Amino acid sequence: MDKLSITACVIIIGNEILSGRTQDENLSFIGKRCDESGIHLTEARVIPDDETVIVATVNEVRNNHTYVFTTGGIGPTHDDISTAAIAKCFKVKIERNPAAVAALEKYYEAGKLNEARLKMANIPAGAILIDNPVSGAPGFQIENVFVLPGVPMIMQVMFDGLVDRLAGGLPILTDSIVTNLTEGTLAEGLSALQDKYPAVSIGSYPYFKQGKLGVNLVIRSTNKDALVNSGEDIAALVTSLQGRILG
Amino acid sequence: MDKLSITACVIIIGNEILSGRTQDENLSFIGKRCDESGIHLTEARVIPDDETVIVATVNEVRNNHTYVFTTGGIGPTHDDISTAAIAKCFKVKIERNPAAVAALEKYYEAGKLNEARLKMANIPAGAILIDNPVSGAPGFQIENVFVLPGVPMIMQVMFDGLVDRLAGGLPILTDSIVTNLTEGTLAEGLSALQDKYPAVSIGSYPYFKQGKLGVNLVIRSTNKDALVNSGEDIAALVTSLQGRILG
Repeated sequence: MDKLSITACVIIIGNEILSGRTQDENLSFIGKRCDESGIHLTEARVIPDDETVIVATVNEVRNNHTYVFTTGGIGPTHDDISTAAIAKCFKVKIERNPAAVAALEKYYEAGKLNEARLKMANIPAGAILIDNPVSGAPGFQIENVFVLPGVPMIMQVMFDGLVDRLAGGLPILTDSIVTNLTEGTLAEGLSALQDKYPAVSIGSYPYFKQGKLGVNLVIRSTNKDALVNSGEDIAALVTSLQGRILG
Repeated sequence: MDKLSITACVIIIGNEILSGRTQDENLSFIGKRCDESGIHLTEARVIPDDETVIVATVNEVRNNHTYVFTTGGIGPTHDDISTAAIAKCFKVKIERNPAAVAALEKYYEAGKLNEARLKMANIPAGAILIDNPVSGAPGFQIENVFVLPGVPMIMQVMFDGLVDRLAGGLPILTDSIVTNLTEGTLAEGLSALQDKYPAVSIGSYPYFKQGKLGVNLVIRSTNKDALVNSGEDIAALVTSLQGRILG
């Protein structure tokens, strides 16, 4: 695959992901959106709710990527420390953001917007808000870092609202062929096809489903012709090896 | 929570995870097993099938953690490059491992063990095999790095087989309280309880399920008394705020 210059890193912030108590769903969502937008998501980190670690990680990756997306840790409780950590990264103060207060006032009934909830209107100075149509409390963008909540349903809506801000490259096109053949049978032929099509990334992912073995062959490229031609060659390879194409 | 000295990092290797095409399930499994074994999983990385990146990442984290677990990229196809990359990390050669060949011979029917499949018996010199009772091809351990496959069903069985090799600390005990209260209502009281119980990590995770808002409060500690006492105080807090305890 072409080396593309527009890259992203996802930072998933949350002890609950590392303890296995919560299954992350945000990485796969952002990964798909990046593909569609021509942004190469080349890295993800999962880190604990620890200010020192958040600051070090964000500062490391924001210099190496076009975009950084963080999820988690921007709610009202004591363990929500992402906003403060991101402000430290950029050496800016946190200030109560009037537009964020207005968004919270719109969401909460009169009398319910207590001090803990108002903490969600504390935003690093100079940041641009990311609208939250689900539950009021905004995320924010500061330079190339986009700070989003961890709850997947809310994060997804907010991500879709900010995607227009992202400059992408050519969208990455994908196709896949599912077969009952196993990897060991396909390996030699696939390797030859990978050499034949350098503009295509051919991935081979074995599966065990309902007691049956097989492989999901995934091809990805920004070049449509190369994608189509390599797909046809892979299908021919499967057939020549007496395999069936299942999807 | 106590700073514990036994830590681990998970490295998930695979373009398919970063593209969002495959939902990772290995991190949450390993996270739970680490908790049970008293190992602090403090970091995870998701990286592409790229030798330079694998070598750099493994070399960085293996010096900072007691254990490193990698998943993915040890099958027979051209995109399975983890074994070669790990050998480079340790500056050792890859050699055909007789015990690994024997394991493959046991698994495959006569005549089916072709050269591509035999690639899975190429193991870095000096590594200790990790048994694969599901599909033959072993993983391996070299120093503190444990190299496992990506298919969750196989990885899980193999991980459970190696857990006896891991020296852990005190198991991390957990409990949780699910309530219909929201985070903004609980935040002030929770923060006070976190200050009262420094040996306990209190996490607050909002959820939206079937149109209902609530919070899952998770407490974690290696100290059983502190866990029980903080759990009772949290339950009392929920009740004092007119909340219901749902689980």
